[in-house]
Amino acid sequence: MPEDNMDKPNIVTCTAPVNIAVIKYWGKRNEELILPINSSLSVTLHQDQLKTTTTVATSRSFQEDKIWLNGKEEDITHPRLQSCLREIRRLARKRRNDRGTAVDSTCLSHKVHICSVNNFPTAAGLASSAAGFACLVYSLARVFGVEGELSGIARQGSGSACRSMYGGFVQWIMGQQDDGKDSLAQQVEPETHWPELRILVLVASAERKPIGSTSGMQTSVQTSCLLKYRAESVVPGRMVEMTEAVRRKDFPAFAELAMKDSNQFHATCLDTYPPIFYLNSVSHQVINLVHCYNRHYGETRVAYTFDAGPNAVIFTLQQHVTEFVQVVQHFFPPEINGGQFIKGLQVNHADLSEELKQNIGLEQMPKGISYIISTTAGPGPCVVEDPTQHLLGSDGLPKKTV
Amino acid sequence: MPEDNMDKPNIVTCTAPVNIAVIKYWGKRNEELILPINSSLSVTLHQDQLKTTTTVATSRSFQEDKIWLNGKEEDITHPRLQSCLREIRRLARKRRNDRGTAVDSTCLSHKVHICSVNNFPTAAGLASSAAGFACLVYSLARVFGVEGELSGIARQGSGSACRSMYGGFVQWIMGQQDDGKDSLAQQVEPETHWPELRILVLVASAERKPIGSTSGMQTSVQTSCLLKYRAESVVPGRMVEMTEAVRRKDFPAFAELAMKDSNQFHATCLDTYPPIFYLNSVSHQVINLVHCYNRHYGETRVAYTFDAGPNAVIFTLQQHVTEFVQVVQHFFPPEINGGQFIKGLQVNHADLSEELKQNIGLEQMPKGISYIISTTAGPGPCVVEDPTQHLLGSDGLPKKTV
Repeated sequence: MPEDNMDKPNIVTCTAPVNIAVIKYWGKRNEELILPINSSLSVTLHQDQLKTTTTVATSRSFQEDKIWLNGKEEDITHPRLQSCLREIRRLARKRRNDRGTAVDSTCLSHKVHICSVNNFPTAAGLASSAAGFACLVYSLARVFGVEGELSGIARQGSGSACRSMYGGFVQWIMGQQDDGKDSLAQQVEPETHWPELRILVLVASAERKPIGSTSGMQTSVQTSCLLKYRAESVVPGRMVEMTEAVRRKDFPAFAELAMKDSNQFHATCLDTYPPIFYLNSVSHQVINLVHCYNRHYGETRVAYTFDAGPNAVIFTLQQHVTEFVQVVQHFFPPEINGGQFIKGLQVNHADLSEELKQNIGLEQMPKGISYIISTTAGPGPCVVEDPTQHLLGSDGLPKKTV
Repeated sequence: MPEDNMDKPNIVTCTAPVNIAVIKYWGKRNEELILPINSSLSVTLHQDQLKTTTTVATSRSFQEDKIWLNGKEEDITHPRLQSCLREIRRLARKRRNDRGTAVDSTCLSHKVHICSVNNFPTAAGLASSAAGFACLVYSLARVFGVEGELSGIARQGSGSACRSMYGGFVQWIMGQQDDGKDSLAQQVEPETHWPELRILVLVASAERKPIGSTSGMQTSVQTSCLLKYRAESVVPGRMVEMTEAVRRKDFPAFAELAMKDSNQFHATCLDTYPPIFYLNSVSHQVINLVHCYNRHYGETRVAYTFDAGPNAVIFTLQQHVTEFVQVVQHFFPPEINGGQFIKGLQVNHADLSEELKQNIGLEQMPKGISYIISTTAGPGPCVVEDPTQHLLGSDGLPKKTV
């Protein structure tokens, strides 16, 4: 191999999805290994609407590991980044030792440059760290030629990142071992399993950033006796129920359990001392709206779930999307016009009956919701083959467009 | 006795206090007898600030039982009113039979007129039914010559009313019997026990009436597994802890447990399906304010507790009232001037240090709190000896001034 080729970086670009839990993860039994106190189950959102893109480059000429997030260089020594880098390099080394020289062994000693961007604003309050660490681990594995189970490494970057390693419906099995080797994500059903399922992210106009989930769940584990009870005695049964609801595509069962589990998670936040509030008045009103809407029809057509922030994620079926979006627009009259209010998958316009509006009977909250992202369940991480999409140039530095 | 005297009504007027629970009652195991799923503990508020006044009259000439509440005639056939009337008359009859003719036996066959008023607006969102039923039972007992344990009867009017039958610090022991005979209130300590304790009711400007506690707790019992766990496994220990904290006058222990128990009660409301929200954005901000204030001083000087509504009840010690009220006024700039903003016991003016304001560092919420009622722990129900205070005239009808 000529010298100049040896200096040219080895570049890989991948994308990874956001996921939204319907059985919630809250609380670690081991902070360092990120081992949860209960299993959880999520839906992977489609990357057409929400994704992280990460380029990883290795080169003999790089002096040190470096990372750029959303255009800004960040501290590579962050312990969770270091965990992922260390684990991937360890697996690559193991693979090399197991298989002889099948892998380009020089690459292992090279430093990496990492560049990552989200196609959605951080303001959306979506768990970007899950997509981010999933994408990082997936990209690093590609560049270092590591294959097989990677969710255990993604987990060490950000707990819920392990669920973003698969598409569709994914469970994170808490595991029992102290070393965390059995705390892994598994696909329950692929994204093709339930094509009628639609997802709406209602981005609330949040006043201020809520308390971070890492410190929040630490305080909850230390102070909430309801969280302990939930993890030990409630979640195991709910995991079985939710898995079954997904397998059967039983929307009412899926929807009701998702709502109950979201509420119980926020209940444990309130039982934390000092209490943590992630739901604000807009969230409360979305919850009321969903229950009033379902009550109007006498069946569960729509469900909400909330993570560690005020934004609702709505689940519904294809045939109800148009009307429900119109209901949201009616009760949360937007600041911006209708076209920009709905991003992502197209939603048609519908006229609402006066009867429906009156039956719901809530007060309007103008500007309570900034915009809606309309999406579906989607696939897991992917490799981007088109080299023009790399975020790092052949000099190993972020391209100007980033 | 001359005929005209026989027609003159026998009139009694009593007053009874509001109480605020620091270990919360939420959920019945028997709806009809009003038997709770857990014990609770409350502080009786002083009647100088908050009280119900009830006049009960009996007369041979009354055609039927009647009741007027806050100036308006109400339906006497309400099952809970009927429970109290029936139980008092049963005790009176028992007493007559046990003691012979010691009691005026004719009175027993007479109909009653009841007239009741609160000295605080219903808008204050304070559990007026507790004071109301306590006052009704206390007055009826007087007029029918019944003595002894009355909290079991008040309980059948409104669960928490049993705690308003005593002053100071009161526990409602849930009891074990199916007939409810052992589900009674007991004084833990009298109101004179802890004279330094001060109480502030922060009346939030509520947008709408929240869901009633009777139907709310029914739904909670049916749907919240966290409530069941709380009642069975958390409250028993907390009753012991709280009783001890009161006995020792240990403010930090009392305060922290009161806050934790309020939060846990609201957590179980959120775990209810559909969820119930009693705390609004003003409540959340009061909670944040209290924790920031305590953190600033590195000790627990102030505590909050919330019942089934958005109003905070604040506990603090005499020496901190002035400053804390000023803090509340700073972060919730009132609509009305300072004089009217604080009702009840006088609170002096204080200047706040910039350091304190900055350390708290919350955004101001103008008009979030309508007014503050400043009070203390107080005595139980009392007889009003002054006949000019009767709410019913000698004709058995409400006086014009009511």
